[in-house]
Amino acid sequence: MSTLWNHRYAQRTQRMTSSVIRELLKLTALPDVISFAGGLPGPDLFPVEEVKEATESVLETKGRVALQYSTTEGYAPLRDMICRHMARYGIVVDIDNILITSGSQQALDLIGKILVNPGDKLLVESPTYLGAIQAFTMYGAEYATVPTDDDGMVTDRLEDALRCGPKFIYALPNFQNPSGVTMPLERREALIRASDHYGIPIIEDDPYGQLRYEGEHIKPLVVLDAECLDCGHNGKYTGNVIYLSTFSKTLAPGLRMAWVAAPKEVINKLVQAKQGTDLQCSTFDQMVAFEVGHGGFIDRHVQRIRQVYGHRRNVMLAALEKAFPDRSLGVKWTRPLGGLFLWATMPDWLDTAELLKEAVNEKVAFVPGFAFYPCGGGHNTVRLNFSNARDEQIEEGIARLGRVVMRQIESHKSAAKA
Amino acid sequence: MSTLWNHRYAQRTQRMTSSVIRELLKLTALPDVISFAGGLPGPDLFPVEEVKEATESVLETKGRVALQYSTTEGYAPLRDMICRHMARYGIVVDIDNILITSGSQQALDLIGKILVNPGDKLLVESPTYLGAIQAFTMYGAEYATVPTDDDGMVTDRLEDALRCGPKFIYALPNFQNPSGVTMPLERREALIRASDHYGIPIIEDDPYGQLRYEGEHIKPLVVLDAECLDCGHNGKYTGNVIYLSTFSKTLAPGLRMAWVAAPKEVINKLVQAKQGTDLQCSTFDQMVAFEVGHGGFIDRHVQRIRQVYGHRRNVMLAALEKAFPDRSLGVKWTRPLGGLFLWATMPDWLDTAELLKEAVNEKVAFVPGFAFYPCGGGHNTVRLNFSNARDEQIEEGIARLGRVVMRQIESHKSAAKA
Repeated sequence: MSTLWNHRYAQRTQRMTSSVIRELLKLTALPDVISFAGGLPGPDLFPVEEVKEATESVLETKGRVALQYSTTEGYAPLRDMICRHMARYGIVVDIDNILITSGSQQALDLIGKILVNPGDKLLVESPTYLGAIQAFTMYGAEYATVPTDDDGMVTDRLEDALRCGPKFIYALPNFQNPSGVTMPLERREALIRASDHYGIPIIEDDPYGQLRYEGEHIKPLVVLDAECLDCGHNGKYTGNVIYLSTFSKTLAPGLRMAWVAAPKEVINKLVQAKQGTDLQCSTFDQMVAFEVGHGGFIDRHVQRIRQVYGHRRNVMLAALEKAFPDRSLGVKWTRPLGGLFLWATMPDWLDTAELLKEAVNEKVAFVPGFAFYPCGGGHNTVRLNFSNARDEQIEEGIARLGRVVMRQIESHKSAAKA
Repeated sequence: MSTLWNHRYAQRTQRMTSSVIRELLKLTALPDVISFAGGLPGPDLFPVEEVKEATESVLETKGRVALQYSTTEGYAPLRDMICRHMARYGIVVDIDNILITSGSQQALDLIGKILVNPGDKLLVESPTYLGAIQAFTMYGAEYATVPTDDDGMVTDRLEDALRCGPKFIYALPNFQNPSGVTMPLERREALIRASDHYGIPIIEDDPYGQLRYEGEHIKPLVVLDAECLDCGHNGKYTGNVIYLSTFSKTLAPGLRMAWVAAPKEVINKLVQAKQGTDLQCSTFDQMVAFEVGHGGFIDRHVQRIRQVYGHRRNVMLAALEKAFPDRSLGVKWTRPLGGLFLWATMPDWLDTAELLKEAVNEKVAFVPGFAFYPCGGGHNTVRLNFSNARDEQIEEGIARLGRVVMRQIESHKSAAKA
């Protein structure tokens, strides 16, 4: 249907996610396909009973408040709970530093809205989170990238990238989406020193920080920045690192409850931007999230999530060993210490966007890695989600993936011989 | 606290709502003040019991779905319910024409995002909805205005405004926010013919359409456009009018449930924009809204809201008569046929932004009308909300307002004599 809107779209719509990625992602949702493409938590772990009790309590005791408009900043008891929750990880801020957002995706959008002018360079890891690229690109962001390895951002390569004068650095230090890798303490410290030296602030995106399956917790960037004696900081929140996190992975994503911790001046701008964007998050969901979470439930629940997802990670790692026993073929993968994703690299000649079409025929799906590279690259990589599948699905799905890849390798060998 | 973010804000933040308006609105929230400033539904009418039953049902039967991620477009049964609901008002579209948004405010933001380039002119009523100005202005919109009178947009003045070549026309034909006025059929038809003649599409914002307290329902623009024989239309949805509505006023605003009806091509763009903005609305709230609404409850509930708000409107009208018995003083007000707002005009020399400070001392508040004029004007107008106050509060609040205004008038008279 041709309408009067046809030729009226804003220029920024040309920057929306490429239709190539969208068409590929549609494939992953076909019926009967075992999909490792999503980033979904396992619904078997959702605290349905606890949410039910919480909604009853909220509606019985504060029903008229829960259904009414409320403030843009968010429900004060929830923001207070978040402060106490973060304090246990060493992040010491107060309630005026917190804005509740509709998932971390909205935090990324609002940050783009208040900070990004068309043509601004942002410094990101390569690969980096697709949703951040989507959010920032709409406001005209361009990218400078720092490569990653099995220890995340290669901080030795930071200085090169910083020369472009980026507006900020966007980093996911824990169990990165998409690659699953984690920055060790030394690299985090190097990143903080570089940020301070060049005066470039940081957005730290930490959706999975609590979902660690092995090794010890490493201090987040926001804490290291406060503690950085080399930088002359005094142990208090400096405001130079904006920290994002969410209840989507520790409670339930359907409630869309996440938060930004930022200096008050930035929170004020974000609040104004949010007023024009959607006024506020659901009052009801905020009150339910508080009611479920405030008695220490989330910490107990996270213990259980760690066990189950850690096990699923192990099942996927074992299935990959079984599917690709011959290391000389050039298929390798990360061993994530936490989070939801595992990252596999195929032989250099293999294009995983093409591979996905074959894989879907074999009823298995993943996200082709190129989608996570804002400046190109990653054509031979894949992101695999392990949190939202049963053991036998993981085993069967990875076996199917193995068959598809092995067929490609065989036919590549034949072609090379011919 | 000075941080590295200080000098990094995007240029568009300079277009955020003026601090004058924000500072004034803070006054209206002071304790003990009877506030007619908000646009809040009366919480005494919220269907708390029905929402409680609905949440129990949703969590018992589909708990794991309700807490999981879902599609950006929105929960299909809710979109289908909205189609059936709108069909009874003559708006015939299908589920692919519907996107669920987080309040109508998000619909306005997404429309700005996909349609507005910096410098684009938008044609709006003067005065018009402040939230729309906030949303569109962030994307660089500029405004051409059409004046309004007691019958809404003065369509005889449309042609002048259309000469600037606006990207679209934004109109609120029913019980307008802020003025409370309603466009009669003839003006709606004139607007549709002008839109067709000049090829300028329309955004119809209809949050209050069902809240009519007297007179007969008038067909919305989207229906008149489909039926316009002069325009050569065939009775089907043309796509040239995008229609916005919400459950905030018929169910509860705390759930943040609203929708856009638009041609599929526009919905596709809005969906892509929403993906980068917040992924999706709360799955839980969408399922709860469907569960509460699908059995015809909303229609029954609206009957009750009409009775109560209609009564409150009458109480405010009577209180105004009592407070300003002398028509020669130049204080007048609209008699809204529905909605939440009544609009009063003070003598021309009176500045209602200044008046608000006096009024708050007297413990009564309103929104000074200038906030709703994107191109200036309205310095002597006020918006009064009547839905969220008890009878005695309305009577007392308007009496206080009367005293404040009469004091101003007396002192103006003395000054004139002196």
